[in-house]
Amino acid sequence: MFSEEHRLAGVAYPEGFTAAGVRAGIKKSGNLDVAVIYTENRANVAGVFTQNTFAAAPVHVSKIVVGTGTAHAIVANAGCANACTGEQGLKNAEKMASIAAENLKCRQDDVIVASTGVIGVNLDMEKMEAGIKNAVSKLSREGSVNAGNAIVTTDTYSKACATAIEIGGKQVKFGAIAKGSGMIQPNMATMLCFITTDAAIDQKLLQSALSEITEVSFNMISIDGDMSTNDMVIVLANGAAGNPTITEKNADYEKFYSTLKNICTELAKKIASDGEGATKFLTIDVKGAETFEAAKQVGMSVAKSPLVKTAFFGEDPNWGRVVCAVGYSGIKIVPEKTVVKFGNIPVYENGLGTKYDDAALKKVMAAHDIVIEIDLGLGNFDATVFSCDFSYEYVKINGEYHT
Amino acid sequence: MFSEEHRLAGVAYPEGFTAAGVRAGIKKSGNLDVAVIYTENRANVAGVFTQNTFAAAPVHVSKIVVGTGTAHAIVANAGCANACTGEQGLKNAEKMASIAAENLKCRQDDVIVASTGVIGVNLDMEKMEAGIKNAVSKLSREGSVNAGNAIVTTDTYSKACATAIEIGGKQVKFGAIAKGSGMIQPNMATMLCFITTDAAIDQKLLQSALSEITEVSFNMISIDGDMSTNDMVIVLANGAAGNPTITEKNADYEKFYSTLKNICTELAKKIASDGEGATKFLTIDVKGAETFEAAKQVGMSVAKSPLVKTAFFGEDPNWGRVVCAVGYSGIKIVPEKTVVKFGNIPVYENGLGTKYDDAALKKVMAAHDIVIEIDLGLGNFDATVFSCDFSYEYVKINGEYHT
Repeated sequence: MFSEEHRLAGVAYPEGFTAAGVRAGIKKSGNLDVAVIYTENRANVAGVFTQNTFAAAPVHVSKIVVGTGTAHAIVANAGCANACTGEQGLKNAEKMASIAAENLKCRQDDVIVASTGVIGVNLDMEKMEAGIKNAVSKLSREGSVNAGNAIVTTDTYSKACATAIEIGGKQVKFGAIAKGSGMIQPNMATMLCFITTDAAIDQKLLQSALSEITEVSFNMISIDGDMSTNDMVIVLANGAAGNPTITEKNADYEKFYSTLKNICTELAKKIASDGEGATKFLTIDVKGAETFEAAKQVGMSVAKSPLVKTAFFGEDPNWGRVVCAVGYSGIKIVPEKTVVKFGNIPVYENGLGTKYDDAALKKVMAAHDIVIEIDLGLGNFDATVFSCDFSYEYVKINGEYHT
Repeated sequence: MFSEEHRLAGVAYPEGFTAAGVRAGIKKSGNLDVAVIYTENRANVAGVFTQNTFAAAPVHVSKIVVGTGTAHAIVANAGCANACTGEQGLKNAEKMASIAAENLKCRQDDVIVASTGVIGVNLDMEKMEAGIKNAVSKLSREGSVNAGNAIVTTDTYSKACATAIEIGGKQVKFGAIAKGSGMIQPNMATMLCFITTDAAIDQKLLQSALSEITEVSFNMISIDGDMSTNDMVIVLANGAAGNPTITEKNADYEKFYSTLKNICTELAKKIASDGEGATKFLTIDVKGAETFEAAKQVGMSVAKSPLVKTAFFGEDPNWGRVVCAVGYSGIKIVPEKTVVKFGNIPVYENGLGTKYDDAALKKVMAAHDIVIEIDLGLGNFDATVFSCDFSYEYVKINGEYHT
């Protein structure tokens, strides 16, 4: 579904969108660090933000923009999270928006602002001003790769995808860039995801779709259980495709919804798989729960367990740790009804470990992608959580950095 | 308060108690692995057990014993957790009690049973039978050190302490042994703590004291957030001191309570400090919360954060990660009222990082014991959580072991 060509086109793939990424000197490494995404047609905007009480300044500013329902641009930087920066931080986030607005000739409250990087440090606004101006001057249909690279921190690669579908006889395009990695690492904050589409869709429907989809995609990943101060998912829908505006939950909406869900799930999986120091991508399929929430809670309990994560790093089929994490999830469990499988091989059932084929299980554990299936046998609700293992590299990345 | 002499005397320090630890061949290492603690006078017994749904067989058996209110003995082994072992596991746990009862000439339901070690493997009951017989034959007032060593798994040392106080004109003694380490590691399960006292105290009061104290001691430690299938804290009170039996919450009870609390807190701290691969002992003092539960939740959120734990391993004063973990604890926080200190040095206040003395803070971070103080500024409730850092060694211990 997501081709390499589409990945490169990214957020500038949908009609009417341009993007750019430039070096402003905010990252110590000297890499790209300021991104701008722009749509000439004012877009309907939807957003989902971190629930961390210490939400960063750009989160506060962008929530207000989403509240207006429309936007023209996103301006983002990496290298400095502008979090725990008080009044000055808020002023700087607003200033980022006003610099972008001035250069893009749009209103300040039409500019979404996002930051990721070191916590507790103020943005260098001189560098930001020059960077934003430079980025605006470089906006193009080929700018998504640079924009994507400008928002990464410890990610090993920039996540992006794009696709096209047909709605009401028109081609409707979607594009996205995202970053993840640790949640706040070398003092870094954040998961950021920016999605563009030329679909015409009512803003309230767009927001409700994004909120629902975030619950079952980005909110189903756990790298290390930490929720950052800067997390943000934004969708801009500028209507340039010319499809009949989607104003109710009809067949067109279903098409739109499932495409947006595929994009978010794809990016969520890429973020989990590229977790700090990860050597394994773990898919935790919880089945047979009494509610979705219960299934998710069991999956998250397993996904967050350092003992489970280190076992998979060591390629050890340690089902005892999985069962244990299920057991303390807080959800009512019947041990005798619980079945645990690693890559389709049952390892625990009827209250006991199974006699499995050692060679076959060894092969499962040696793979990069491993599916842990947990059937609770209690109901009809499922949830899938994405995670990764804990490696020496995780400790190195997070322990050896000095502020 | 807890001298080296007392530590050696341990659970056999109070009048009427004897102990022993022997090699039965359950641990692959060939180390001591079966312990028996005995009191001739039948003791009142209290217990607190794991809330893990997959509680091990010995937990089920011992809960019944605690339900009877009295006991004569504790029999415990390391090397095999007898968890996820179904019907056979229950039979084996009962058999452990019956072998001990036969040799000690007491009733089977007067014997507490505990196990720690590999999950999903059955006990070798031939070895256990020989081991229990051998341990009973070796019971002595000098047996606590061996008993303590027989219950450890990946602990780097056996935890023990003892003390004496005066109640109603009589000397009343207390002793204890405990093990901790990872919660379930190299497939190992468990925190075990056995406390003996010659105090005369009503069983219901004893249970209520232990339940309350466990909440603020053992339940305040987090090594890695995993709650094992085998955790158990047991107190035996045999009345041999001859003090007037404590039957109400009077001054005698207060003395008893505060001593028991000191013992549990001391052992909880030792367990946290000896967490798997730990290089730092972290005390997280949360103050100014609206409730004790809120304070505890904030403390646990910080204690469990892998990003906080790796930062302290790296001696990095990364207050951003602490603030972030406070922010996603689920407790209502007012960032501007929150103050974070590392070893008395404020690092975050008024919504901002402080300008601290680098050299002084470096000294704090370089120490083995570090106090993280978090004042929420919202109320009058405090909670103290004990934790440790995450090191390469943790990943090594938990990732390199193969079942």
